[in-house]
Amino acid sequence: AQNVCNYFGYNPLDRCAHMRKDAQWLEEKLRDQSTVILLFHDLGLVVEKLNAQPRFTQPCHFTFKDISATLEELGTEKVLVFLGLGRLQSDNTDGPSPHTSAKEEHLTAWFALDVTSISQEKILSIKEGLEIASSPFPGLFQLPEKEAGIVAQARSLLAWHQRYKFCPTCGSVAAMEEAGYKRMCQKEGCPSLKGVHNTAYPRTDPVVIMLIISPDGKRCLLGRGKRFPGRMYSCLAGFMEPGETIEDAVRREVYEESGVRVGRVQYHSSQPFPLPASLMIGCLGYATSENISVDKEELEDAQWFTRQQVAEVQTGAPLPTDALTNPRAEGPSFFLPPAQAIAHQLVKAWLRMSPNL
Amino acid sequence: AQNVCNYFGYNPLDRCAHMRKDAQWLEEKLRDQSTVILLFHDLGLVVEKLNAQPRFTQPCHFTFKDISATLEELGTEKVLVFLGLGRLQSDNTDGPSPHTSAKEEHLTAWFALDVTSISQEKILSIKEGLEIASSPFPGLFQLPEKEAGIVAQARSLLAWHQRYKFCPTCGSVAAMEEAGYKRMCQKEGCPSLKGVHNTAYPRTDPVVIMLIISPDGKRCLLGRGKRFPGRMYSCLAGFMEPGETIEDAVRREVYEESGVRVGRVQYHSSQPFPLPASLMIGCLGYATSENISVDKEELEDAQWFTRQQVAEVQTGAPLPTDALTNPRAEGPSFFLPPAQAIAHQLVKAWLRMSPNL
Ligand SMILES: Nc1ncnc2c1ncn2[C@@H]1O[C@H](COP(=O)(O)O)[C@@H](O)[C@H]1O
Ligand SMILES: Nc1ncnc2c1ncn2[C@@H]1O[C@H](COP(=O)(O)O)[C@@H](O)[C@H]1O
Ligand SMILES: [Mg+2]
Ligand SMILES: [Mg+2]
Ligand SMILES: [Mg+2]
Ligand SMILES: [Mg+2]
Ligand SMILES: [Mg+2]
Ligand SMILES: [Mg+2]
Ligand SMILES: [Zn+2]
Ligand SMILES: [Zn+2]
Repeated sequence: AQNVCNYFGYNPLDRCAHMRKDAQWLEEKLRDQSTVILLFHDLGLVVEKLNAQPRFTQPCHFTFKDISATLEELGTEKVLVFLGLGRLQSDNTDGPSPHTSAKEEHLTAWFALDVTSISQEKILSIKEGLEIASSPFPGLFQLPEKEAGIVAQARSLLAWHQRYKFCPTCGSVAAMEEAGYKRMCQKEGCPSLKGVHNTAYPRTDPVVIMLIISPDGKRCLLGRGKRFPGRMYSCLAGFMEPGETIEDAVRREVYEESGVRVGRVQYHSSQPFPLPASLMIGCLGYATSENISVDKEELEDAQWFTRQQVAEVQTGAPLPTDALTNPRAEGPSFFLPPAQAIAHQLVKAWLRMSPNL
Repeated sequence: AQNVCNYFGYNPLDRCAHMRKDAQWLEEKLRDQSTVILLFHDLGLVVEKLNAQPRFTQPCHFTFKDISATLEELGTEKVLVFLGLGRLQSDNTDGPSPHTSAKEEHLTAWFALDVTSISQEKILSIKEGLEIASSPFPGLFQLPEKEAGIVAQARSLLAWHQRYKFCPTCGSVAAMEEAGYKRMCQKEGCPSLKGVHNTAYPRTDPVVIMLIISPDGKRCLLGRGKRFPGRMYSCLAGFMEPGETIEDAVRREVYEESGVRVGRVQYHSSQPFPLPASLMIGCLGYATSENISVDKEELEDAQWFTRQQVAEVQTGAPLPTDALTNPRAEGPSFFLPPAQAIAHQLVKAWLRMSPNL
């Protein structure tokens, strides 16, 4: 079977990790007129205002010329990250592969730049028709599929630089290296400088997210987080803890949040999630018990839903526009997250499975 | 199919996360005479000297009474971590499940204590016949299977406290909370205190490790890291990067290290790896190209091996005792990592698969 590709999961860039130490090559790439530079203001992506399509977010593709004054203003301390080389229009149709055999010259270089220290007004005046997608919802979830992965990569890296400015081992300032993929402590003699330590590298948090199937195979377990919009229910999920397997993390989080016991766990697919830098590990899990006892600290509710119930809301009419905010809006009694969420894909995968499995 | 259980992957404890804020309950558990406390000196586990079984490491199970003087000497700044409640002798035989329905009273509480600031001599004098397994090899890999997961959990947490003493957002001191599962910045007004941020939580690094199968299905790709012992070859592996899927990380690392292109990727199993706190995500990957171009910065060599070659060394006679250190030792022309390594299990899984798949 083909690998599933979730939203944020398709990234057409070759990261060219071996070039990250080559300052001259990077500088040449940055100045190339075909190069695309994404700007972020306090992690808000700078996008093109597209009035015609309000439900679609187009990242603005800046060139070096557009932002040369901005770069100068930022000075040497700036967070400028190399994303990779690639082509948005790929003629390669046999599935997602970040690697392309074409000659390097024909590929576009991509960078991301943090412009938080410059005023929003100044950034918005670089070009006409710009906007800052300050809130991750819905902006981050309406990107063209082929750019969503690039934006996820960029935003995760910038979020790391924003929160990890200091060496966690000694508290001194850490400085960016290797085109944004490393931060090294600047204090001589710091233990973090002896040997290889994760303190110097971007942090990615593994999270398990799982659709739990009832012992009779006829229902699935969905929950409502305390801050979920409207009547939305979704898969249970949780951060992995030190020293556990993916499978045990699924069992532990489901038990903690719902009291349901899980036996076998089956990996489905994964999704990078740039809020700020998680790796969603999507699984199906087979319950060995049914009684639900909701952890009221984390969830408002958790329930078993039949195949028919989820199939109806999944394939049903579009939600009324106020469904996300108004609990008394018309429409179905509950709804699922949109297709961009891996939870949605897990539900879909279960609906496609034979009910007798 | 049952889930595979790798070494370090079986952990019989219920972590009881909801009790981590209950200082009184934790104190009672700590003082209970049945409670087991593991000691680590600079991340070296304190073990029982077992001369009869030199290739077996038994963690010393300290009681509160054994270490009450040690606890006093450490004072209030000590790193004492609650691991969970459990039973080593489980009558539950239907596979790995950290959760048990038995009454809490019958379960043993487990803790881990960092005693680095006390001299080794003093620690070794707590009881007769103690030893510190200072080097992770081979000590960490010869634990009883039922304790390996507990030790992995404990060591990952202590390694985090050792390297993340300071707030990465502002450089101030961070203090331990919630029985060892949180560190909070102590500086008023630090941005890390507003909202939920990963800076406060233990770090787990996802790593992909993969057995790559040749296009004809007859061979697998193995490499030799620069610092591998003797003639050992193993699966390629690498840290996941921000904003990528598990599947793309497999493709990227294999391409970086060997030049081989990979198409479909199949998840196999996972393994917590406490050096210092990785999550090994084991996969099989199907190559779409064959030519190897070794990344000499990371690997000494990479080669395709036939089923017969790996089957021979996997099922062959035990290695001569000097095989790990002496490149000219007698025995097979190469060897695989031991059964405790997930790489070993990936090779085994491939050998069991039909050659025509
Ligand atoms: N890396 C992390 N980032 C953010 N929150 C975390 C992290 N690890 C544990 N948590 C805690 O996990 C809670 C969410 O619960 P869950 O996602 O079910 O594990 C958060 O409110 C935090 O208290
Ligand atoms: N979290 C991390 N911890 C340690 N090393 C890392 C980490 N992330 C990236 N690296 C780098 O990855 C190298 C090992 O390569 P690989 O395991 O193939 O990705 C190390 O030598 C580091 O330079
Ligand atoms: Mg949760
Ligand atoms: Mg959790
Ligand atoms: Mg939870
Ligand atoms: Mg590697
Ligand atoms: Mg790597
Ligand atoms: Mg590598
Ligand atoms: Zn430092
Ligand atoms: Zn702080």
